[in-house]
Amino acid sequence: MPQGNPAQIPDDGLTTRQRRNRPLVIVHTGPGKGKSTAAFGLALRAWNQGWPVGVFQFVKSAKWRVGEEHALRVLGDTGQGGPVTWHKMGEGWSWIQRDQTDHAEQAAEGWAQIARDLAAQTYRMYVLDEFTYPIKWGWVDVDDVVSVLTARPGAQHVVITGRDAHPKLLECADLVTEMTKVKHPMDAGQKGQKGIEW
Amino acid sequence: MPQGNPAQIPDDGLTTRQRRNRPLVIVHTGPGKGKSTAAFGLALRAWNQGWPVGVFQFVKSAKWRVGEEHALRVLGDTGQGGPVTWHKMGEGWSWIQRDQTDHAEQAAEGWAQIARDLAAQTYRMYVLDEFTYPIKWGWVDVDDVVSVLTARPGAQHVVITGRDAHPKLLECADLVTEMTKVKHPMDAGQKGQKGIEW
Repeated sequence: MPQGNPAQIPDDGLTTRQRRNRPLVIVHTGPGKGKSTAAFGLALRAWNQGWPVGVFQFVKSAKWRVGEEHALRVLGDTGQGGPVTWHKMGEGWSWIQRDQTDHAEQAAEGWAQIARDLAAQTYRMYVLDEFTYPIKWGWVDVDDVVSVLTARPGAQHVVITGRDAHPKLLECADLVTEMTKVKHPMDAGQKGQKGIEW
Repeated sequence: MPQGNPAQIPDDGLTTRQRRNRPLVIVHTGPGKGKSTAAFGLALRAWNQGWPVGVFQFVKSAKWRVGEEHALRVLGDTGQGGPVTWHKMGEGWSWIQRDQTDHAEQAAEGWAQIARDLAAQTYRMYVLDEFTYPIKWGWVDVDDVVSVLTARPGAQHVVITGRDAHPKLLECADLVTEMTKVKHPMDAGQKGQKGIEW
């Protein structure tokens, strides 16, 4: 947004300062690239503010997010910004093997951890990477997610990424961006490559 | 992309390895959030690969990108990944004051610098942040941009962000993602805030 002016001033009794510091639920969804990379870009801003950042990675792959993970761990360790904690939820599963019961249990436990951290205000920004999938597959109850997010205390921002975000999640979110694929090199036979996909 | 398999294997005589390492022109456009944050997320992956990263910022604002700039400068200085060079093109202008001739000259000089760096293979990944605007305003000739990008040597990836990407730029790009605004808190009177917008 090039200009910071809202389209309208709401009659909500809040001061500009209060509106400026409203905690947000942000969803990056859609079939295009950039959902997770944009979330990690936001994490850079949070780090720069000195905020504790919690990353919760819900889909496992040998190569996924290695660049982001290394970068954010190094940044967190510098002490020049906020600390960064990187959680891998359900280390043993990938979204391809989605019919296995223990994966569902691991995802549910991952979400339970997030709910505990939100209650304790452990972080100021949460990146729930690929969290739309365990919701979509019914491993995590969307009503519970909406309830916990809505009731979270303090000024905690939550960024959720992944395709096919549940309509109830979108309704609960403050900011939703859909990444649309206009042109993709894999359509032309391109393989995934380092520095781009991971 | 959860799976690395292309939709089809092209009859281009290239090996999988060659296709894996094809230099890309990537465009993040559209009215939604996440265009620049996703580009800086890609820069994290490039940094992690040890690649020299060059950021060219084409729009100035007191607060814009301060988080990303600090984070990427710190990362570059650690020596644990690639070096990062951050260029501010046209320090004195912002996109709001777009009718001033010297801004056009500064943008043109900024592009000339990028063209020189591409010819010299100074970086492995280029982030041309908000570069769609000087093209849109005619400050930089789109045919020249396409020509330079198409003829660039080596394995240099170029990521360009901004709304209203020129059709010729989209045609030249390998990967185009459109960020669409589904829901935005400024529509509900929310102000821009630290850690989110900067």
